[in-house]
Amino acid sequence: MPSPSDRQPSATTKANLAEAVSAWRRDLGDDHVLTGDGDLARYSQSTTSSPVRALAVIRPASQEEVVAAVKAAAEHNVPLYPISRGNNWGYSDACPATAGNVIVDLSRMNRILSVDADLATAIVEPGVTQGQFSDYLLNEGIALWPDCTGAGPDTSIIGNVLDRGFGHTPLGNRANHISGMEVVLADGRLVRTGFGHFDGSRVTSLFPYGVGPHLDGLFVQSGLGIVTRMGIWLMPKPEAYSFFICSLQEDGDIADLVEDLRPLRLDGTVKSVVHMGNDLRVISSGMSYPRHLSPEGGPLSMALRRQLRAAGGFGAWTVAGGLYGAKGQVAASRREIRRRLARSGRQLLFFDDRKLALASRVLRPLLRLPKAAALQRKVDALRAVYDMNRGRPSPRFLAGAYWRRRDGLPQDIATANPALDGCGLLWLPPVLPFTGEAVREAVGLAEPIFSRYGFDFFVTFSTVTERALSAVMTIAYDKDSPEETEAAKACYDALLTAMLRAGFPPYRLNPSSMQTLASTTSAYWQTVADLKGALDPAGIMAPGRYSRH
Amino acid sequence: MPSPSDRQPSATTKANLAEAVSAWRRDLGDDHVLTGDGDLARYSQSTTSSPVRALAVIRPASQEEVVAAVKAAAEHNVPLYPISRGNNWGYSDACPATAGNVIVDLSRMNRILSVDADLATAIVEPGVTQGQFSDYLLNEGIALWPDCTGAGPDTSIIGNVLDRGFGHTPLGNRANHISGMEVVLADGRLVRTGFGHFDGSRVTSLFPYGVGPHLDGLFVQSGLGIVTRMGIWLMPKPEAYSFFICSLQEDGDIADLVEDLRPLRLDGTVKSVVHMGNDLRVISSGMSYPRHLSPEGGPLSMALRRQLRAAGGFGAWTVAGGLYGAKGQVAASRREIRRRLARSGRQLLFFDDRKLALASRVLRPLLRLPKAAALQRKVDALRAVYDMNRGRPSPRFLAGAYWRRRDGLPQDIATANPALDGCGLLWLPPVLPFTGEAVREAVGLAEPIFSRYGFDFFVTFSTVTERALSAVMTIAYDKDSPEETEAAKACYDALLTAMLRAGFPPYRLNPSSMQTLASTTSAYWQTVADLKGALDPAGIMAPGRYSRH
Repeated sequence: MPSPSDRQPSATTKANLAEAVSAWRRDLGDDHVLTGDGDLARYSQSTTSSPVRALAVIRPASQEEVVAAVKAAAEHNVPLYPISRGNNWGYSDACPATAGNVIVDLSRMNRILSVDADLATAIVEPGVTQGQFSDYLLNEGIALWPDCTGAGPDTSIIGNVLDRGFGHTPLGNRANHISGMEVVLADGRLVRTGFGHFDGSRVTSLFPYGVGPHLDGLFVQSGLGIVTRMGIWLMPKPEAYSFFICSLQEDGDIADLVEDLRPLRLDGTVKSVVHMGNDLRVISSGMSYPRHLSPEGGPLSMALRRQLRAAGGFGAWTVAGGLYGAKGQVAASRREIRRRLARSGRQLLFFDDRKLALASRVLRPLLRLPKAAALQRKVDALRAVYDMNRGRPSPRFLAGAYWRRRDGLPQDIATANPALDGCGLLWLPPVLPFTGEAVREAVGLAEPIFSRYGFDFFVTFSTVTERALSAVMTIAYDKDSPEETEAAKACYDALLTAMLRAGFPPYRLNPSSMQTLASTTSAYWQTVADLKGALDPAGIMAPGRYSRH
Repeated sequence: MPSPSDRQPSATTKANLAEAVSAWRRDLGDDHVLTGDGDLARYSQSTTSSPVRALAVIRPASQEEVVAAVKAAAEHNVPLYPISRGNNWGYSDACPATAGNVIVDLSRMNRILSVDADLATAIVEPGVTQGQFSDYLLNEGIALWPDCTGAGPDTSIIGNVLDRGFGHTPLGNRANHISGMEVVLADGRLVRTGFGHFDGSRVTSLFPYGVGPHLDGLFVQSGLGIVTRMGIWLMPKPEAYSFFICSLQEDGDIADLVEDLRPLRLDGTVKSVVHMGNDLRVISSGMSYPRHLSPEGGPLSMALRRQLRAAGGFGAWTVAGGLYGAKGQVAASRREIRRRLARSGRQLLFFDDRKLALASRVLRPLLRLPKAAALQRKVDALRAVYDMNRGRPSPRFLAGAYWRRRDGLPQDIATANPALDGCGLLWLPPVLPFTGEAVREAVGLAEPIFSRYGFDFFVTFSTVTERALSAVMTIAYDKDSPEETEAAKACYDALLTAMLRAGFPPYRLNPSSMQTLASTTSAYWQTVADLKGALDPAGIMAPGRYSRH
């Protein structure tokens, strides 16, 4: 297992750092400036193969404290790296993009500042988690549904948006459903984007663009500022909600399904982000790598995969999405989906509250029977996806991160933390045209690469826009094995090269590839560097995050 | 009538300009570098009260020529102002934001570079007009509908997006439905945004954000570069299309309608941009100011407005939108709209191809009867709005610009050009929360201001996002009257002040207010100035366009 990078900070000396630390202790309080080995080791725990250790961690409690902390960092020339909750699993977890940074942990800024039930908006701080927010809405009886990702209840809403994460509902293309940021720049300036800088504006959370250039895109996947507040959009709880699962019999069936799905997404029949996972995604949600069945340790054989599919009662691919609206509209959309998706070789099922409650009621008296218990587990799993499509997060989708972990799945998935639990996980998400041909090509390129490096090929294709799919490819590896850790890194690099060559660039990167890609000579990255130079000339803000320096 | 601003260029001397002009003549050809008085006068014709005259006009035919022209401008320190077709009616028409600029007229770059019928995208140049594009799709039999605005067939698609214009269809929030820009910066660098800078990317038109900061927002409403190419999104022609009009009896009825409409827009029943115009918007589409009925010349009396409403058979407000989808879905949405919008005091009608064709067929043999001819005109008007909601532009919505023009409506609206025809027109579009209360408040504030300055209060509220309305307020004035021209300017300023004070900032400005607003001390405008300094240090790109300088 590699130790955290020990590259020395370039600009920061021990004296500078000491001065900054004493300023922060004064402004934030001793308890919120962490410099001990144990703390720094904990923050540097990472699912990736290249953890980066910070110089210190500061934990401001308010926008004012962020401003003060940034000013002190600027004065003493100490680079900062903001994290919201630090749960950027599979990309960088809580780690800075480069060595020599002080982490600004925003998790204490966890206030839900306002919710507007009529206009379906909220304003939140970076420490607000999707679990906290979902609970708040349910407890307060507010009839709004937020978007939700599979990354578990403890992840930050703002943090995910700023890494351009996507979820499951019609608001799943998250960075497209925000309005009004407050951002602290490297000189301590507080910028309100959109209409937020107009005194008394009543539309800051409603019309993201404001007047003049729209700056929000600058602060997503960048190191240009610390976002301390954001307006996010929600959906009104619909009169009806129906969830569909389409199970495909054979591996090759996905291309045709994608072709049939595209028009349904383009015409708005399916407004949610549809996720299409292969069998290994489903298998890995309920068990870790079955060493007893596959003692040689490489990727599971196709025979074993088929056996596990049959035992679990699912297919080569599982396709899931939600339908929302008035009862008549949902019924009409369900008819359209049936008419345009149902085919031989596909099992198409619809679920709603009534059906799921009924299944549980029928099974309850039978739970002592092994078959009924297995069925109940399946219903529980189904309910978790069903709930996620209406904005309620679940920790159970983190299970895949534990696939190759020697200790297997955690005792209690509810408290799972793949980074602290020693999971090995790298995510690579190339973006493809929403066509069957592109999906076939991407699978054809990727699967042999996974095999070559000895890994199982986990993939989900998600309809992030109506025209593009994001293919999240998961490299799950044993972090206790130096060989597997090396192989995982090599597999990632080979995959990235293959996907770029095929014309499928990734929408999100891990820090080491950020700097590699951003160092190309393209005018785009030059422009990003110029903008960075204008807003952060001393380079104290998240150096190396989606930029050369 | 004021003459074009004669402020002297700050940076450009005659010698500089002469050198730049000879470089352009060499690179673009003599015919495409205009310096004659007649040409410059024509470009400076404006509906606004403060036309600005350019130093010269250059007309590049390609991206390469734009790059060459920008390099020459940079070398000789001559500011450039790009226009696509120059039809930015009511805001700035073809005029630069400040004096001392050379116009870069991109109208010769009018190629439709590609259309992807499966993924519903196209790549166009800035000279492509919405009329040209709509005709192209119809002629080629491509089953895609573009978005469309009321600004007439001759307006540029890209130009409108870059001023954050909005249209009528589900893609009406236009700047949100583009993907992949090519932009020439002030140093002649060609930047490809999104994934466009990855060699061989196959998703540039499909996933706008790319990886790293998303720059597109920087080039909308700014003077940071010249956009020479853009990917735009279209909608597949739906199986069914239905258009609804809801007519409200009384002026005060709009607030309740807005409250009933919001949930329908939030839940996606109505995906199009719904436009809600007051009676004067409808009246002015068919006639100019009736001096014979209102000889005193001020705003039309309420009695006269009621009389014209009764004669025309429309109400105090006309609300229009489109429904799209499979037959069953459109039927279900129609039922929802009927259930949730139909009320006493509202007349709700649905139209489709069949109904409109039937109306024309019934009327045809009766057209010699005056009543039938009037009815046919109404059907024609209806068809124009109906067509606009499926992407087919019409010139007839420009009629309102002629309201106070002494010569009245043009002989042939098809060749109308409000700037060249001497119309006086100022548009101010404050953004409001999508609530009845906000609409009531905005009308209550604005109408007395229009009255005070002697103008009729034209307003349309449009559901640009699901949460915000843009209220386009029209000041139509007689440009041949210096008093009215002054009053129009004063009315605009008073309105802007009142709307800002109420918390309703505008989404779009005319050039003089751009510079006033951008000169405030807010961190937002300071940041815009910093970004401008980074990308255009010499200030040669569209100085004063949504910026201080």
